[in-house]
Amino acid sequence: MIVYLNGQFIPLEDAKISVLDRGFIFGDAVYEVWRAVRGQLFEPDRHLARLASGLKDIHIAPPPESKRAGLLAISERLMRENGFTGEASLFLEMTRGVAPRMHQYPKPAVAPTVFIMAAAFQPPEELRAKGGSVICIDDVRWNRCNVKTTQLLPNVMAKQEAAEHDALDAIFVRDGMLTETSHANVMAVIGGAVWTHPITGHVLPGVTRDVVLELAKSMGIAVQEKPIPKADLPKATEVFLTGTLSDVMPIVSVDGKKVGDGRPGPIARKLFTALRGRLDAIGSAPSRA
Amino acid sequence: MIVYLNGQFIPLEDAKISVLDRGFIFGDAVYEVWRAVRGQLFEPDRHLARLASGLKDIHIAPPPESKRAGLLAISERLMRENGFTGEASLFLEMTRGVAPRMHQYPKPAVAPTVFIMAAAFQPPEELRAKGGSVICIDDVRWNRCNVKTTQLLPNVMAKQEAAEHDALDAIFVRDGMLTETSHANVMAVIGGAVWTHPITGHVLPGVTRDVVLELAKSMGIAVQEKPIPKADLPKATEVFLTGTLSDVMPIVSVDGKKVGDGRPGPIARKLFTALRGRLDAIGSAPSRA
Repeated sequence: MIVYLNGQFIPLEDAKISVLDRGFIFGDAVYEVWRAVRGQLFEPDRHLARLASGLKDIHIAPPPESKRAGLLAISERLMRENGFTGEASLFLEMTRGVAPRMHQYPKPAVAPTVFIMAAAFQPPEELRAKGGSVICIDDVRWNRCNVKTTQLLPNVMAKQEAAEHDALDAIFVRDGMLTETSHANVMAVIGGAVWTHPITGHVLPGVTRDVVLELAKSMGIAVQEKPIPKADLPKATEVFLTGTLSDVMPIVSVDGKKVGDGRPGPIARKLFTALRGRLDAIGSAPSRA
Repeated sequence: MIVYLNGQFIPLEDAKISVLDRGFIFGDAVYEVWRAVRGQLFEPDRHLARLASGLKDIHIAPPPESKRAGLLAISERLMRENGFTGEASLFLEMTRGVAPRMHQYPKPAVAPTVFIMAAAFQPPEELRAKGGSVICIDDVRWNRCNVKTTQLLPNVMAKQEAAEHDALDAIFVRDGMLTETSHANVMAVIGGAVWTHPITGHVLPGVTRDVVLELAKSMGIAVQEKPIPKADLPKATEVFLTGTLSDVMPIVSVDGKKVGDGRPGPIARKLFTALRGRLDAIGSAPSRA
């Protein structure tokens, strides 16, 4: 596989970074994951806007690869050289760069490390048809979950705990409220409306979350951006996750308790169909890029 | 400089890790920093115990380098080959290893990545003589600060904010209580007793913290392992930091307000002298290692 590292397109096995890279030493980095269809990125600009915002939040000067033209050229080449002509994903990480280990930022600043890789992707349609199960877990994460950094150890451990319970994922619960999962936003249908946690320091402003909320509104489905109390789950007729690699994923069981009638619900299905339509339009219509 | 990476002693510039290392991708790693004098580590076993505990907490099987014999042999060689015969430090990082990017742990497990480097160290005696200043900052970190992981971006940003205020460091404040700084524990002398935050998920169980508290008790100084309310700082006659590279560092100003009479205090001085005695005993007495 060919990946991009600091200006070079090289085989993955040659893509190595210094042990002094601040991404390795401090988790001093932001990242993004795009969906791609037929070699083209889905919603490139929303992800780029979040990336720009994250770089600003953690005070890394935006490198050319964080700009539209730079990113799209790299993505296009990675998709082409690796032959990813169908469903794929694009991962990007930008760190503060390589410098002798000290907490404060290098002065003068050093060049950020930029790593970008693409991967073929198989949407989990079999699981989507029957719905997934999740567990709930204490949200021990920091208060800047709205910034997409590589401070991901709690997410890693939550996903692992889910896997050990044969669950798809784990929903973080903070002060009795569902925030999000290890890598997706959480939505619930309560009283016919779609509820999801508002954007605070406790959840990521998911691109798929945004698109799905827009789709819901356009379909006349009420949206409540309010925290979902875990105690209110019995009232939810549907629960689903939204994310770049989840699309809309129905959840039919939380901590072993059935959601609604234990089958994927109509609102999740409608929203997925609409989102899928948006994905299928990429590359078949005049290029969005 | 010669460093150790996965079984090899190699020049720093050749020490490279895969972009898929989970330390780089997820901050999925623990680390340690030892002090060394005359080529020998200070309190190797307390650090090794904390390392073992951290590896267990995040479910990484302990590699040979996390054991006494393995670590001491590597440390000895790094100190010798690099000519660090005086004051030095040793940094170690262990990650969950290299695997295709997915949150859950690789199954089967892969070999952890082990990186160890030594550096010459100059204790900051000039600063210690006059005392340092600190700022206070919101503690936005996660709830597992007792585990020494590379989830360090908030620490990085706190230290940077301190530097921008011409301060030595930043004290994190959580719910009105002083927890610790970006890389040291915090102690205050209130009513003649040494106060410091108890070990919870909000502070690191510092090795120097432990040694200093033992020294205080052995000198008949009362110790209170209780959170220090920020509001009680005006009552503190002394504030000081403890850490592997800080030893005992008097703090004479917090957020621009004088601590006590604005000069290093007698208890910090006594504790530093006793700690320095312990450091000076390394390598001059029969080997502790």
